[in-house]
Amino acid sequence: MRFAFLGPAGTYGEQATRQLAELEGVANPELVPQLGIRAVVQALAQGTCDAAVVPVENSVEGGVTACLDALWEHPDLSVARALVLPIRHALLGSGPITGVSEVLSHPQALAQCSQWLSEHLPQALQLPTSSTAEAARMVAGSRFRAAIASQQAGTEHGLLELAYPINDVAGNCTRFLLLRRGPRSSQGPMASLAFSLHSNQPGALLEALGCFAQRGLNMGRIESRPSKREMGEYIFFVDLELPNGSTPLEAALAELAPLCEHLALFGAYPVTNLA
Amino acid sequence: MRFAFLGPAGTYGEQATRQLAELEGVANPELVPQLGIRAVVQALAQGTCDAAVVPVENSVEGGVTACLDALWEHPDLSVARALVLPIRHALLGSGPITGVSEVLSHPQALAQCSQWLSEHLPQALQLPTSSTAEAARMVAGSRFRAAIASQQAGTEHGLLELAYPINDVAGNCTRFLLLRRGPRSSQGPMASLAFSLHSNQPGALLEALGCFAQRGLNMGRIESRPSKREMGEYIFFVDLELPNGSTPLEAALAELAPLCEHLALFGAYPVTNLA
Repeated sequence: MRFAFLGPAGTYGEQATRQLAELEGVANPELVPQLGIRAVVQALAQGTCDAAVVPVENSVEGGVTACLDALWEHPDLSVARALVLPIRHALLGSGPITGVSEVLSHPQALAQCSQWLSEHLPQALQLPTSSTAEAARMVAGSRFRAAIASQQAGTEHGLLELAYPINDVAGNCTRFLLLRRGPRSSQGPMASLAFSLHSNQPGALLEALGCFAQRGLNMGRIESRPSKREMGEYIFFVDLELPNGSTPLEAALAELAPLCEHLALFGAYPVTNLA
Repeated sequence: MRFAFLGPAGTYGEQATRQLAELEGVANPELVPQLGIRAVVQALAQGTCDAAVVPVENSVEGGVTACLDALWEHPDLSVARALVLPIRHALLGSGPITGVSEVLSHPQALAQCSQWLSEHLPQALQLPTSSTAEAARMVAGSRFRAAIASQQAGTEHGLLELAYPINDVAGNCTRFLLLRRGPRSSQGPMASLAFSLHSNQPGALLEALGCFAQRGLNMGRIESRPSKREMGEYIFFVDLELPNGSTPLEAALAELAPLCEHLALFGAYPVTNLA
Protein backbone atom coordinates (compact mmCIF):
# COMPACT_ATOMS: atom_id res chain seq x y z
CA MET A 1 0.00 0.00 0.00
CA ARG A 2 1.39 3.37 -1.09
CA PHE A 3 1.14 6.47 1.16
CA ALA A 4 1.76 9.94 -0.29
CA PHE A 5 3.06 12.52 2.20
CA LEU A 6 4.70 15.95 2.32
CA GLY A 7 8.34 14.98 1.92
CA PRO A 8 11.19 14.49 2.02
CA ALA A 9 11.83 11.44 4.21
CA GLY A 10 12.53 12.23 7.87
CA THR A 11 10.05 15.13 8.28
CA TYR A 12 7.32 15.26 10.92
CA GLY A 13 5.00 14.35 8.03
CA GLU A 14 6.82 11.04 7.62
CA GLN A 15 6.54 10.32 11.35
CA ALA A 16 2.80 10.94 11.13
CA THR A 17 2.52 8.71 8.05
CA ARG A 18 4.28 5.77 9.74
CA GLN A 19 2.03 6.08 12.78
CA LEU A 20 -1.11 6.30 10.66
CA ALA A 21 -0.09 3.28 8.54
CA GLU A 22 0.44 1.27 11.73
CA LEU A 23 -2.95 2.37 13.09
CA GLU A 24 -4.49 1.21 9.80
CA GLY A 25 -2.84 -2.18 10.25
CA VAL A 26 -0.64 -1.80 7.17
CA ALA A 27 2.51 -3.83 7.88
CA ASN A 28 4.87 -2.66 5.12
CA PRO A 29 3.69 0.72 3.89
CA GLU A 30 5.46 2.24 0.90
CA LEU A 31 6.05 5.91 1.70
CA VAL A 32 6.06 8.19 -1.34
CA PRO A 33 7.33 11.72 -0.57
CA GLN A 34 5.75 14.59 -2.54
CA LEU A 35 6.71 18.21 -3.08
CA GLY A 36 3.83 20.35 -1.78
CA ILE A 37 0.36 19.57 -0.43
CA ARG A 38 -1.28 19.81 -3.85
CA ALA A 39 1.01 17.04 -5.10
CA VAL A 40 0.14 14.87 -2.06
CA VAL A 41 -3.58 15.20 -2.78
CA GLN A 42 -3.10 14.74 -6.55
CA ALA A 43 -1.15 11.50 -5.99
CA LEU A 44 -4.20 10.08 -4.20
CA ALA A 45 -6.86 11.58 -6.51
CA GLN A 46 -5.09 10.31 -9.64
CA GLY A 47 -4.55 6.84 -8.18
CA THR A 48 -0.74 6.72 -8.09
CA CYS A 49 -1.06 6.30 -4.29
CA ASP A 50 -3.64 4.53 -2.10
CA ALA A 51 -3.61 6.98 0.80
CA ALA A 52 -2.42 10.53 1.51
CA VAL A 53 -1.32 12.14 4.78
CA VAL A 54 -1.81 15.90 5.10
CA PRO A 55 -1.30 18.38 7.95
CA VAL A 56 -4.56 20.13 8.81
CA GLU A 57 -3.68 22.27 11.82
CA ASN A 58 -0.54 24.07 13.01
CA SER A 59 2.09 22.45 10.82
CA VAL A 60 5.82 23.22 10.89
CA GLU A 61 6.31 22.78 7.19
CA GLY A 62 3.22 24.55 5.86
CA GLY A 63 0.30 23.58 3.68
CA VAL A 64 -2.49 23.56 6.24
CA THR A 65 -5.18 25.58 4.49
CA ALA A 66 -4.42 23.78 1.22
CA CYS A 67 -5.64 20.56 2.83
CA LEU A 68 -9.10 21.92 3.64
CA ASP A 69 -9.39 23.38 0.15
CA ALA A 70 -8.41 20.04 -1.41
CA LEU A 71 -11.14 18.19 0.51
CA TRP A 72 -13.67 20.79 -0.61
CA GLU A 73 -12.60 20.36 -4.25
CA HIS A 74 -12.26 16.53 -4.29
CA PRO A 75 -15.58 14.89 -3.35
CA ASP A 76 -14.06 11.54 -4.32
CA LEU A 77 -11.70 11.68 -1.30
CA SER A 78 -12.60 10.97 2.32
CA VAL A 79 -11.00 11.38 5.76
CA ALA A 80 -10.23 7.92 7.17
CA ARG A 81 -8.34 8.79 10.34
CA ALA A 82 -6.71 11.63 12.31
CA LEU A 83 -3.53 11.81 14.36
CA VAL A 84 -2.32 14.52 16.75
CA LEU A 85 1.48 14.49 16.76
CA PRO A 86 3.53 16.46 19.31
CA ILE A 87 6.15 18.65 17.60
CA ARG A 88 9.31 18.91 19.69
CA HIS A 89 12.42 20.21 18.01
CA ALA A 90 15.91 18.99 18.89
CA LEU A 91 19.26 20.60 18.16
CA LEU A 92 21.25 17.89 16.38
CA GLY A 93 24.96 17.79 15.53
CA SER A 94 28.22 15.89 15.73
CA GLY A 95 30.35 17.96 18.12
CA PRO A 96 29.88 19.99 21.32
CA ILE A 97 27.31 22.81 21.25
CA THR A 98 30.09 25.34 22.02
CA GLY A 99 31.58 24.64 18.57
CA VAL A 100 28.35 25.30 16.63
CA SER A 101 28.62 28.31 14.32
CA GLU A 102 25.80 27.48 11.85
CA VAL A 103 22.26 26.24 12.52
CA LEU A 104 20.25 24.81 9.62
CA SER A 105 16.48 24.18 9.43
CA HIS A 106 13.20 25.01 7.71
CA PRO A 107 12.52 28.76 8.24
CA GLN A 108 9.35 27.96 10.22
CA ALA A 109 11.29 25.69 12.62
CA LEU A 110 14.03 28.34 12.98
CA ALA A 111 11.31 30.87 13.83
CA GLN A 112 9.73 28.49 16.38
CA CYS A 113 13.10 28.28 18.17
CA SER A 114 14.20 31.91 17.66
CA GLN A 115 14.15 32.79 21.37
CA TRP A 116 16.12 29.67 22.35
CA LEU A 117 18.66 30.38 19.60
CA SER A 118 19.10 34.02 20.65
CA GLU A 119 19.81 32.87 24.22
CA HIS A 120 22.03 29.84 23.56
CA LEU A 121 23.60 30.39 20.13
CA PRO A 122 23.41 34.15 19.57
CA GLN A 123 26.46 34.18 17.28
CA ALA A 124 25.41 31.24 15.08
CA LEU A 125 24.42 31.88 11.50
CA GLN A 126 20.90 30.60 10.72
CA LEU A 127 20.66 28.87 7.33
CA PRO A 128 17.33 27.90 5.74
CA THR A 129 16.59 24.47 4.28
CA SER A 130 13.53 23.15 2.48
CA SER A 131 12.60 20.88 5.44
CA THR A 132 13.79 19.86 8.90
CA ALA A 133 14.82 16.45 7.53
CA GLU A 134 16.96 18.05 4.83
CA ALA A 135 18.72 20.07 7.55
CA ALA A 136 19.58 16.88 9.49
CA ARG A 137 20.95 15.30 6.31
CA MET A 138 23.08 18.34 5.52
CA VAL A 139 24.81 18.67 8.91
CA ALA A 140 25.89 15.02 9.14
CA GLY A 141 29.70 14.84 9.34
CA SER A 142 30.22 18.50 10.27
CA ARG A 143 31.45 19.59 13.71
CA PHE A 144 30.46 23.27 13.38
CA ARG A 145 27.00 22.84 11.83
CA ALA A 146 23.86 21.82 13.75
CA ALA A 147 20.29 21.12 12.57
CA ILE A 148 16.89 21.76 14.12
CA ALA A 149 14.74 18.69 13.46
CA SER A 150 12.96 15.81 15.19
CA GLN A 151 14.83 13.33 17.40
CA GLN A 152 14.02 10.63 14.81
CA ALA A 153 15.77 12.61 12.09
CA GLY A 154 18.83 12.71 14.35
CA THR A 155 18.78 8.93 14.83
CA GLU A 156 18.45 8.36 11.07
CA HIS A 157 21.51 10.45 10.30
CA GLY A 158 23.61 9.34 13.29
CA LEU A 159 23.55 12.77 14.95
CA LEU A 160 23.96 13.65 18.64
CA GLU A 161 21.17 15.39 20.50
CA LEU A 162 22.82 18.64 21.61
CA ALA A 163 19.65 20.08 23.21
CA TYR A 164 15.99 19.02 23.52
CA PRO A 165 13.33 20.32 23.42
CA ILE A 166 14.22 23.76 22.08
CA ASN A 167 10.85 25.12 20.84
CA ASP A 168 10.03 28.49 22.42
CA VAL A 169 6.43 27.38 23.03
CA ALA A 170 5.94 24.02 24.77
CA GLY A 171 3.01 21.81 23.85
CA ASN A 172 3.23 22.40 20.11
CA CYS A 173 1.19 19.82 18.12
CA THR A 174 0.23 19.19 14.50
CA ARG A 175 -2.93 17.39 13.48
CA PHE A 176 -2.62 15.15 10.41
CA LEU A 177 -5.40 13.52 8.39
CA LEU A 178 -5.21 10.24 6.51
CA LEU A 179 -7.15 10.57 3.25
CA ARG A 180 -8.45 7.72 1.08
CA ARG A 181 -10.40 7.47 -2.14
CA GLY A 182 -13.98 6.26 -1.90
CA PRO A 183 -17.24 7.05 -0.09
CA ARG A 184 -17.28 9.26 2.98
CA SER A 185 -18.29 7.45 6.15
CA SER A 186 -20.61 8.81 8.84
CA GLN A 187 -19.47 6.16 11.36
CA GLY A 188 -16.78 7.24 13.82
CA PRO A 189 -16.18 9.30 16.95
CA MET A 190 -15.29 12.50 15.05
CA ALA A 191 -16.66 13.98 11.81
CA SER A 192 -15.32 16.73 9.58
CA LEU A 193 -17.55 18.66 7.24
CA ALA A 194 -17.79 21.96 5.39
CA PHE A 195 -20.59 24.14 4.12
CA SER A 196 -21.27 27.44 2.42
CA LEU A 197 -24.55 29.24 3.14
CA HIS A 198 -27.16 30.73 0.81
CA SER A 199 -27.26 33.81 2.99
CA ASN A 200 -24.44 35.84 4.53
CA GLN A 201 -26.92 37.56 6.87
CA PRO A 202 -26.39 37.75 10.64
CA GLY A 203 -27.93 34.67 12.15
CA ALA A 204 -27.49 32.45 9.09
CA LEU A 205 -24.46 30.72 10.58
CA LEU A 206 -26.24 30.59 13.93
CA GLU A 207 -29.18 28.75 12.37
CA ALA A 208 -26.73 26.35 10.72
CA LEU A 209 -24.87 25.62 13.96
CA GLY A 210 -28.20 25.15 15.72
CA CYS A 211 -28.66 21.97 13.66
CA PHE A 212 -25.71 20.48 15.54
CA ALA A 213 -26.36 21.92 19.02
CA GLN A 214 -29.98 20.72 19.07
CA ARG A 215 -28.72 17.16 18.70
CA GLY A 216 -26.05 17.44 21.38
CA LEU A 217 -23.19 17.40 18.86
CA ASN A 218 -20.27 19.37 20.23
CA MET A 219 -18.00 21.25 17.86
CA GLY A 220 -14.33 20.43 18.36
CA ARG A 221 -13.29 23.11 15.92
CA ILE A 222 -14.76 25.70 13.58
CA GLU A 223 -12.93 27.67 10.97
CA SER A 224 -14.08 29.90 8.14
CA ARG A 225 -12.20 30.51 4.93
CA PRO A 226 -13.13 32.86 2.09
CA SER A 227 -14.49 30.96 -0.89
CA LYS A 228 -12.40 31.72 -3.95
CA ARG A 229 -15.38 32.91 -5.96
CA GLU A 230 -16.34 36.10 -4.22
CA MET A 231 -15.09 38.31 -1.37
CA GLY A 232 -17.28 38.03 1.72
CA GLU A 233 -18.46 34.53 0.78
CA TYR A 234 -17.24 31.98 3.30
CA ILE A 235 -16.85 28.25 3.61
CA PHE A 236 -17.16 26.95 7.17
CA PHE A 237 -15.11 23.93 8.21
CA VAL A 238 -16.43 22.15 11.29
CA ASP A 239 -15.28 19.17 13.37
CA LEU A 240 -18.02 17.43 15.37
CA GLU A 241 -17.81 14.94 18.20
CA LEU A 242 -20.15 11.96 17.68
CA PRO A 243 -20.50 10.24 21.06
CA ASN A 244 -23.84 8.62 20.11
CA GLY A 245 -23.14 7.18 16.64
CA SER A 246 -24.10 8.44 13.23
CA THR A 247 -27.87 8.98 13.60
CA PRO A 248 -27.69 12.48 15.17
CA LEU A 249 -25.16 13.51 12.52
CA GLU A 250 -27.36 12.32 9.67
CA ALA A 251 -30.37 14.11 11.15
CA ALA A 252 -28.35 17.32 11.57
CA LEU A 253 -27.08 17.16 7.97
CA ALA A 254 -30.62 16.65 6.65
CA GLU A 255 -31.76 19.78 8.50
CA LEU A 256 -28.67 21.76 7.48
CA ALA A 257 -28.76 20.94 3.75
CA PRO A 258 -31.59 23.36 2.74
CA LEU A 259 -29.67 26.28 4.32
CA CYS A 260 -26.55 25.52 2.32
CA GLU A 261 -25.35 26.40 -1.14
CA HIS A 262 -22.97 23.48 -0.79
CA LEU A 263 -22.58 20.95 2.02
CA ALA A 264 -19.92 18.23 2.18
CA LEU A 265 -19.25 15.61 4.83
CA PHE A 266 -15.53 14.76 4.55
CA GLY A 267 -15.94 11.63 6.67
CA ALA A 268 -16.27 10.32 10.21
CA TYR A 269 -13.17 8.71 11.65
CA PRO A 270 -11.14 7.74 14.73
CA VAL A 271 -8.64 10.20 16.26
CA THR A 272 -5.40 9.16 17.97
CA ASN A 273 -3.75 11.74 20.22
CA LEU A 274 -0.04 11.20 20.87
CA ALA A 275 0.45 14.57 22.57
CA MET B 1 7.62 56.45 14.08
CA ARG B 2 9.07 52.93 14.22
CA PHE B 3 7.23 49.95 12.66
CA ALA B 4 8.28 46.39 13.56
CA PHE B 5 7.58 43.79 10.87
CA LEU B 6 8.49 40.22 9.91
CA GLY B 7 11.73 40.84 8.00
CA PRO B 8 13.96 41.07 6.18
CA ALA B 9 13.40 44.13 3.98
CA GLY B 10 11.68 43.37 0.67
CA THR B 11 9.21 40.73 1.91
CA TYR B 12 5.45 40.93 1.46
CA GLY B 13 5.44 41.95 5.13
CA GLU B 14 7.42 45.07 4.26
CA GLN B 15 5.01 45.91 1.43
CA ALA B 16 2.12 45.65 3.87
CA THR B 17 3.95 47.78 6.43
CA ARG B 18 4.61 50.59 3.92
CA GLN B 19 0.95 50.59 2.85
CA LEU B 20 -0.27 50.60 6.46
CA ALA B 21 2.08 53.43 7.42
CA GLU B 22 0.77 55.49 4.49
CA LEU B 23 -2.84 54.74 5.49
CA GLU B 24 -1.98 55.94 9.01
CA GLY B 25 -0.64 59.19 7.55
CA VAL B 26 2.94 58.52 8.67
CA ALA B 27 5.18 60.26 6.15
CA ASN B 28 8.62 58.81 6.97
CA PRO B 29 8.12 55.50 8.78
CA GLU B 30 11.19 53.77 10.12
CA LEU B 31 10.84 50.07 9.25
CA VAL B 32 12.48 47.72 11.75
CA PRO B 33 12.69 44.12 10.48
CA GLN B 34 12.38 41.34 13.10
CA LEU B 35 13.14 37.64 13.06
CA GLY B 36 9.89 35.80 13.85
CA ILE B 37 6.40 36.93 14.83
CA ARG B 38 7.13 36.74 18.54
CA ALA B 39 9.94 39.25 18.09
CA VAL B 40 7.62 41.57 16.12
CA VAL B 41 5.08 41.58 18.95
CA GLN B 42 7.78 41.89 21.64
CA ALA B 43 9.28 44.95 19.91
CA LEU B 44 5.91 46.68 20.28
CA ALA B 45 5.07 45.36 23.77
CA GLN B 46 8.48 46.38 25.16
CA GLY B 47 8.33 49.81 23.56
CA THR B 48 11.31 49.61 21.18
CA CYS B 49 8.79 50.16 18.32
CA ASP B 50 5.59 52.22 18.08
CA ALA B 51 3.64 49.86 15.84
CA ALA B 52 3.84 46.25 14.67
CA VAL B 53 2.59 44.64 11.44
CA VAL B 54 1.68 40.95 11.61
CA PRO B 55 0.13 38.52 9.11
CA VAL B 56 -3.14 37.11 10.44
CA GLU B 57 -4.44 34.98 7.59
CA ASN B 58 -2.83 32.94 4.81
CA SER B 59 0.72 34.25 4.91
CA VAL B 60 3.57 33.14 2.62
CA GLU B 61 6.21 33.43 5.28
CA GLY B 62 4.41 31.89 8.24
CA GLY B 63 3.51 33.03 11.72
CA VAL B 64 -0.24 33.40 11.37
CA THR B 65 -1.51 31.60 14.46
CA ALA B 66 1.24 33.22 16.54
CA CYS B 67 -0.41 36.58 15.88
CA LEU B 68 -3.77 35.58 17.38
CA ASP B 69 -2.02 34.05 20.38
CA ALA B 70 0.00 37.23 20.91
CA LEU B 71 -3.14 39.38 20.97
CA TRP B 72 -4.71 36.99 23.48
CA GLU B 73 -1.62 37.23 25.73
CA HIS B 74 -0.98 40.99 25.42
CA PRO B 75 -4.05 42.95 26.61
CA ASP B 76 -1.95 46.14 26.37
CA LEU B 77 -1.91 45.86 22.54
CA SER B 78 -4.73 46.75 20.17
CA VAL B 79 -5.61 46.31 16.50
CA ALA B 80 -5.52 49.71 14.80
CA ARG B 81 -6.02 48.77 11.13
CA ALA B 82 -6.18 45.84 8.69
CA LEU B 83 -4.90 45.44 5.15
CA VAL B 84 -5.64 42.71 2.59
CA LEU B 85 -2.63 42.40 0.28
CA PRO B 86 -2.71 40.33 -2.92
CA ILE B 87 0.21 37.87 -3.05
CA ARG B 88 1.45 37.40 -6.62
CA HIS B 89 4.82 35.77 -7.13
CA ALA B 90 7.15 36.71 -9.98
CA LEU B 91 10.11 34.78 -11.35
CA LEU B 92 13.00 37.25 -11.21
CA GLY B 93 16.46 37.00 -12.77
CA SER B 94 19.11 38.61 -14.93
CA GLY B 95 19.18 36.43 -18.05
CA PRO B 96 16.72 34.55 -20.31
CA ILE B 97 14.45 31.97 -18.62
CA THR B 98 15.99 29.24 -20.80
CA GLY B 99 19.30 29.69 -18.97
CA VAL B 100 17.85 29.26 -15.46
CA SER B 101 19.18 26.15 -13.70
CA GLU B 102 18.50 27.17 -10.05
CA VAL B 103 15.39 28.72 -8.49
CA LEU B 104 15.65 30.25 -5.02
CA SER B 105 12.84 31.19 -2.62
CA HIS B 106 11.20 30.59 0.75
CA PRO B 107 9.99 26.95 0.86
CA GLN B 108 6.36 28.08 1.16
CA ALA B 109 6.66 30.24 -1.99
CA LEU B 110 8.38 27.38 -3.87
CA ALA B 111 5.48 25.12 -2.83
CA GLN B 112 2.92 27.71 -3.98
CA CYS B 113 4.54 27.69 -7.44
CA SER B 114 5.39 23.96 -7.61
CA GLN B 115 3.04 23.20 -10.49
CA TRP B 116 4.30 26.15 -12.55
CA LEU B 117 7.91 25.14 -11.88
CA SER B 118 7.31 21.51 -12.87
CA GLU B 119 5.82 22.70 -16.18
CA HIS B 120 8.26 25.50 -17.08
CA LEU B 121 11.52 24.70 -15.27
CA PRO B 122 11.35 20.94 -14.59
CA GLN B 123 15.17 20.59 -14.59
CA ALA B 124 15.90 23.55 -12.30
CA LEU B 125 17.21 22.90 -8.82
CA GLN B 126 14.99 24.45 -6.11
CA LEU B 127 16.99 26.09 -3.31
CA PRO B 128 15.36 27.30 -0.07
CA THR B 129 15.97 30.73 1.44
CA SER B 130 14.74 32.27 4.68
CA SER B 131 12.46 34.70 2.82
CA THR B 132 11.41 35.71 -0.69
CA ALA B 133 13.35 38.99 -0.29
CA GLU B 134 16.53 37.10 0.62
CA ALA B 135 16.10 35.03 -2.57
CA ALA B 136 15.90 38.18 -4.72
CA ARG B 137 19.04 39.55 -3.07
CA MET B 138 20.95 36.29 -3.62
CA VAL B 139 20.26 35.93 -7.37
CA ALA B 140 21.30 39.47 -8.30
CA GLY B 141 24.21 39.33 -10.75
CA SER B 142 23.76 35.67 -11.71
CA ARG B 143 22.58 34.57 -15.18
CA PHE B 144 21.66 31.00 -14.20
CA ARG B 145 19.86 31.68 -10.89
CA ALA B 146 16.31 33.03 -10.56
CA ALA B 147 14.24 34.00 -7.49
CA ILE B 148 10.56 33.71 -6.68
CA ALA B 149 9.53 36.94 -4.95
CA SER B 150 7.32 40.01 -5.33
CA GLN B 151 7.68 42.38 -8.30
CA GLN B 152 8.83 45.06 -5.82
CA ALA B 153 11.69 42.85 -4.64
CA GLY B 154 12.75 42.55 -8.29
CA THR B 155 12.76 46.32 -8.75
CA GLU B 156 14.81 46.82 -5.56
CA HIS B 157 17.52 44.44 -6.73
CA GLY B 158 17.49 45.45 -10.41
CA LEU B 159 16.13 42.09 -11.61
CA LEU B 160 14.19 41.30 -14.77
CA GLU B 161 10.67 39.87 -14.52
CA LEU B 162 11.02 36.52 -16.33
CA ALA B 163 7.43 35.42 -15.64
CA TYR B 164 4.44 36.83 -13.72
CA PRO B 165 2.27 35.74 -11.99
CA ILE B 166 3.48 32.21 -11.36
CA ASN B 167 1.43 31.09 -8.30
CA ASP B 168 -0.47 27.87 -8.98
CA VAL B 169 -3.60 29.32 -7.32
CA ALA B 170 -4.75 32.75 -8.51
CA GLY B 171 -6.34 35.17 -6.06
CA ASN B 172 -3.97 34.47 -3.19
CA CYS B 173 -4.15 37.15 -0.46
CA THR B 174 -2.70 37.75 2.98
CA ARG B 175 -4.41 39.81 5.66
CA PHE B 176 -2.12 41.93 7.84
CA LEU B 177 -2.94 43.74 11.07
CA LEU B 178 -1.38 46.94 12.36
CA LEU B 179 -0.97 46.69 16.14
CA ARG B 180 -0.41 49.57 18.56
CA ARG B 181 0.00 49.92 22.29
CA GLY B 182 -2.88 51.41 24.23
CA PRO B 183 -6.61 51.01 24.78
CA ARG B 184 -8.69 48.91 22.42
CA SER B 185 -11.24 50.89 20.45
CA SER B 186 -14.82 49.81 19.76
CA GLN B 187 -15.19 52.45 16.99
CA GLY B 188 -14.66 51.19 13.43
CA PRO B 189 -16.26 49.18 10.64
CA MET B 190 -14.70 45.86 11.73
CA ALA B 191 -13.96 44.42 15.18
CA SER B 192 -11.78 41.48 16.23
CA LEU B 193 -12.32 39.69 19.51
CA ALA B 194 -11.69 36.38 21.23
CA PHE B 195 -13.33 34.43 24.01
CA SER B 196 -13.15 31.15 25.88
CA LEU B 197 -16.34 29.68 27.34
CA HIS B 198 -17.14 28.38 30.83
CA SER B 199 -18.80 25.39 29.25
CA ASN B 200 -17.68 23.17 26.39
CA GLN B 201 -21.22 21.74 26.08
CA PRO B 202 -23.09 21.63 22.76
CA GLY B 203 -24.97 24.85 22.42
CA ALA B 204 -22.55 26.94 24.50
CA LEU B 205 -20.91 28.44 21.43
CA LEU B 206 -24.34 28.83 19.86
CA GLU B 207 -25.55 30.88 22.80
CA ALA B 208 -22.38 33.00 22.56
CA LEU B 209 -22.81 33.65 18.83
CA GLY B 210 -26.47 34.49 19.44
CA CYS B 211 -25.30 37.64 21.26
CA PHE B 212 -23.97 38.91 17.92
CA ALA B 213 -26.71 37.63 15.63
CA GLN B 214 -29.51 39.16 17.73
CA ARG B 215 -27.96 42.59 17.13
CA GLY B 216 -27.49 42.11 13.38
CA LEU B 217 -23.71 41.82 13.67
CA ASN B 218 -22.41 39.62 10.86
CA MET B 219 -19.34 37.48 11.43
CA GLY B 220 -16.66 37.98 8.78
CA ARG B 221 -14.62 35.13 10.19
CA ILE B 222 -14.61 32.63 13.01
CA GLU B 223 -11.76 30.41 14.04
CA SER B 224 -11.16 28.21 17.05
CA ARG B 225 -7.78 27.34 18.50
CA PRO B 226 -7.00 25.01 21.37
CA SER B 227 -6.10 26.92 24.51
CA LYS B 228 -2.68 25.87 25.71
CA ARG B 229 -3.91 24.90 29.15
CA GLU B 230 -6.02 21.86 28.46
CA MET B 231 -6.96 19.66 25.50
CA GLY B 232 -10.54 20.22 24.36
CA GLU B 233 -10.57 23.77 25.69
CA TYR B 234 -10.92 26.29 22.89
CA ILE B 235 -10.45 29.96 22.28
CA PHE B 236 -12.73 31.41 19.58
CA PHE B 237 -11.46 34.26 17.42
CA VAL B 238 -14.22 36.24 15.72
CA ASP B 239 -14.29 39.17 13.28
CA LEU B 240 -17.50 41.20 13.29
CA GLU B 241 -18.85 43.75 10.82
CA LEU B 242 -20.10 46.90 12.55
CA PRO B 243 -22.26 48.76 10.02
CA ASN B 244 -24.16 50.66 12.76
CA GLY B 245 -21.41 51.93 15.03
CA SER B 246 -20.19 50.66 18.38
CA THR B 247 -23.44 50.49 20.37
CA PRO B 248 -24.59 47.05 19.14
CA LEU B 249 -21.07 45.69 19.75
CA GLU B 250 -20.96 47.00 23.29
CA ALA B 251 -24.39 45.54 24.03
CA ALA B 252 -23.35 42.18 22.57
CA LEU B 253 -20.16 42.10 24.66
CA ALA B 254 -22.11 42.90 27.84
CA GLU B 255 -24.41 39.95 27.16
CA LEU B 256 -21.55 37.66 26.15
CA ALA B 257 -19.29 38.37 29.15
CA PRO B 258 -21.12 36.19 31.74
CA LEU B 259 -20.83 33.15 29.41
CA CYS B 260 -17.06 33.55 29.08
CA GLU B 261 -14.14 32.48 31.16
CA HIS B 262 -12.19 35.15 29.34
CA LEU B 263 -13.35 37.72 26.77
CA ALA B 264 -11.11 40.18 24.96
CA LEU B 265 -11.93 42.81 22.35
CA PHE B 266 -8.75 43.32 20.30
CA GLY B 267 -10.07 46.51 18.77
CA ALA B 268 -12.35 47.96 16.11
CA TYR B 269 -10.61 49.32 13.04
CA PRO B 270 -10.80 50.19 9.32
CA VAL B 271 -9.97 47.57 6.66
CA THR B 272 -8.33 48.35 3.31
CA ASN B 273 -8.62 45.70 0.62
CA LEU B 274 -6.02 45.93 -2.19
CA ALA B 275 -6.98 42.55 -3.74
